[in-house]
Amino acid sequence: MHKFDDQASKILLKVLSHTIERLSMDPPTLDYPKSVDFFEKNAPSLITEAGNSIDKVFDQYKNTIEQSIISADSPRNLSFIPAAPTKASMIFDLVVSAGSLNGVSWIEGSGAVWVENQVIRWIADLVGFPEDAGGCFVAGGTNGNLSSLVVAREKHRKKYKDHSKRLAIICSDQTHSSVKSTAKVMDCDVIVVPTNDSFQLTRESIENELKVHSKKYKELDIFAIVATAGTTNLGVIDDISGISKYAKRNKIWLHVDGAYGGAGLLSEKVKDLFSGIEYADSFIVDPHKWFFAPFDCAAVIYRNKHLAAEVHSQQASYLDILHDEEAGDNPSDYAFHLTRRARGLPMWFSLSVYGVDAYRQAVESSLDIAKYAADEIKKSSYLTLLIEPSLSVVAFERDNWGWEEYKNWSTEQLKKQVCFVVPSLVRGKPVFRFAFLNPETSKEIVDEILLSLE
Amino acid sequence: MHKFDDQASKILLKVLSHTIERLSMDPPTLDYPKSVDFFEKNAPSLITEAGNSIDKVFDQYKNTIEQSIISADSPRNLSFIPAAPTKASMIFDLVVSAGSLNGVSWIEGSGAVWVENQVIRWIADLVGFPEDAGGCFVAGGTNGNLSSLVVAREKHRKKYKDHSKRLAIICSDQTHSSVKSTAKVMDCDVIVVPTNDSFQLTRESIENELKVHSKKYKELDIFAIVATAGTTNLGVIDDISGISKYAKRNKIWLHVDGAYGGAGLLSEKVKDLFSGIEYADSFIVDPHKWFFAPFDCAAVIYRNKHLAAEVHSQQASYLDILHDEEAGDNPSDYAFHLTRRARGLPMWFSLSVYGVDAYRQAVESSLDIAKYAADEIKKSSYLTLLIEPSLSVVAFERDNWGWEEYKNWSTEQLKKQVCFVVPSLVRGKPVFRFAFLNPETSKEIVDEILLSLE
Repeated sequence: MHKFDDQASKILLKVLSHTIERLSMDPPTLDYPKSVDFFEKNAPSLITEAGNSIDKVFDQYKNTIEQSIISADSPRNLSFIPAAPTKASMIFDLVVSAGSLNGVSWIEGSGAVWVENQVIRWIADLVGFPEDAGGCFVAGGTNGNLSSLVVAREKHRKKYKDHSKRLAIICSDQTHSSVKSTAKVMDCDVIVVPTNDSFQLTRESIENELKVHSKKYKELDIFAIVATAGTTNLGVIDDISGISKYAKRNKIWLHVDGAYGGAGLLSEKVKDLFSGIEYADSFIVDPHKWFFAPFDCAAVIYRNKHLAAEVHSQQASYLDILHDEEAGDNPSDYAFHLTRRARGLPMWFSLSVYGVDAYRQAVESSLDIAKYAADEIKKSSYLTLLIEPSLSVVAFERDNWGWEEYKNWSTEQLKKQVCFVVPSLVRGKPVFRFAFLNPETSKEIVDEILLSLE
Repeated sequence: MHKFDDQASKILLKVLSHTIERLSMDPPTLDYPKSVDFFEKNAPSLITEAGNSIDKVFDQYKNTIEQSIISADSPRNLSFIPAAPTKASMIFDLVVSAGSLNGVSWIEGSGAVWVENQVIRWIADLVGFPEDAGGCFVAGGTNGNLSSLVVAREKHRKKYKDHSKRLAIICSDQTHSSVKSTAKVMDCDVIVVPTNDSFQLTRESIENELKVHSKKYKELDIFAIVATAGTTNLGVIDDISGISKYAKRNKIWLHVDGAYGGAGLLSEKVKDLFSGIEYADSFIVDPHKWFFAPFDCAAVIYRNKHLAAEVHSQQASYLDILHDEEAGDNPSDYAFHLTRRARGLPMWFSLSVYGVDAYRQAVESSLDIAKYAADEIKKSSYLTLLIEPSLSVVAFERDNWGWEEYKNWSTEQLKKQVCFVVPSLVRGKPVFRFAFLNPETSKEIVDEILLSLE
């Protein structure tokens, strides 16, 4: 299994031709899910004592498995937050795979860490973080949020040793679900602050919530606020400027979750909306979203990276050697993880080849198509726009439809391969939402989808 | 950036030829870390507004970056726990990269989830778990340990609502560092039980520790025991049978960390050492270690998968659609994560092609080479074996050497590309340890390394 023998070379040939086919598919087909029944009949397990021919296994993949995975990078995929890796980043991901490139520590993967850190620094500069800022790439935003909030808590604990109160995080009713999961994991409470009419968390809404329920919250020890720079459901950026002042005044850690929206920092068109982000204590952005990297790649960056290393550095006799004084950064010191694929490399390669300006244009093309879609929805006689888009998420109602009609339309369009657009709920009402981030999503595709909603 | 244009096709050609070269390298070169100074001089950042030629960026990768990443899959890499992905798994990882294959949910990635679940079931069968067992692939053992222990705590909390005591996990002084990190994240305590002369955690050692320090531990609410099936430092398997009886009697969750050693379940030669594992409540194994998958791939499996889904399923209006009653499993429901690369596919492909027997033989070849190394060390006049290896880690002392001599030898051998073997500490004493899991690590390589220690 470990020799590059005839069998390996046969597998390689098969996979290379498939790889070329998949990467040159322009655009990739959307595809759609199959049922458990379907797979039971058509894709029985091939895990046997003796193994199977390469053709048999590969054919099962080609004929039943591959087509049952929705292409995250299809320009017709506008659900959740899709993905739109650049060709260079997808291709360079092959290099990471072929070398099983290790990004745990400086000793093991110095070259990988070196170039990953160039991208981390580039993002830190976009945010406006100082020289001491740093971090690493992790497998997803959930891990990034956890890693940041644990550092926040440990810093808080060091200063205020009051164990009589439950610890708590402030976030909004639009904050990503992973923050609540994080609080559960950390065994702390969440103060969910209602957002304003623009679905924003603001300084005023925080102050108001704490005042109105002052009795309820008196027993809590608040150590962090999570502001969102681009909510998942509506693409709204919280009032980071106001919140950062509140956080500073009250000595509370400010974490900014820019998993989806953080890439907007690249565009002068919307950069002002992020004002105040330079005062955050920690920040995450998922390059596998709007920074066009392949799955799974999130960046977590701390204003002061040393605080993170104090918390996350795993201690063991066999790891002592990692902390040699001559070595550079260990990505394992900056988040809750140890082993890691060098997942930042595809973005490094792509960004270095295409350049920042091309990234800026790609981000702005999503802003433009969102504006176009919003305008068309406003013109339509059967659709109602929910709010003007801030970034590239557009939410709207189909007049006179209930949840079932939303769902049926969604299923039908996916079957017809027109689009992958699932209904969502906003304040209890069903809505459709388009999450644009693929520069290949054209006006024609938007027109086609809107027409099918008539 | 998103079109498959001439530029993309030029990148693809360059990368494909590199991929073929890397995958057919037999064996891969070991390589070694460089200093920050070296990179500052030789690999300045190429992230610019306008971007760079493909050749310039790729040449930087080839000439300075690639050689500065130690090959985890070199047969001369015996440090930490290395990696030895099969050729089929490394090659199939290209398919995951080329498709940016999404493994978040059934709806988005049904085909990927279907075949990943075949591997999860295969592992569950090895452990001896019942039909209701299930789980998913996560980015690493650290995430798997966290995900399991959070489920343990939530189950405990539901039953015993005593908030006056601090929660605590029992583990041993040989438990992996990630368990302590996990406890910190979860904000609970760790009771570190000293291991016996064989470096094992046993039922007796737990009972003894709790008795001796009964006053100190009275204020703690113990909800989980972590037993290790193959410690990182010495490859020792705890007395799982005794511990499982203790856990059952005291209604404490038993989590077995088989990150490295779990693959040993495949071999009849050592299977008995795992006895009792079938009673565990949760189990992890890292296929990127001894199950020959590429980075980064850990499997977390629960005896009762429904308990995990109750805890980890992220709730949000835009995610409701994932929990459609007709859909199959969502990997995002079984661990602390949401977005994920379909990281189980390379193992599925490789296992289906080569078959279980080939995996068994590969695991046993590591047991054999460990036995060979241990015997040679015993015969040697300048080395002392620490303990008989249980699995495939061999630890030993170089007589009359201090830490500096251990370190200098290690650095020198890496420079000479003989091996990557770093010193470790066991109960305060410096040791060398070989972690064998690459079937290509030959007796000749072992002889060469041992001779250089004379």
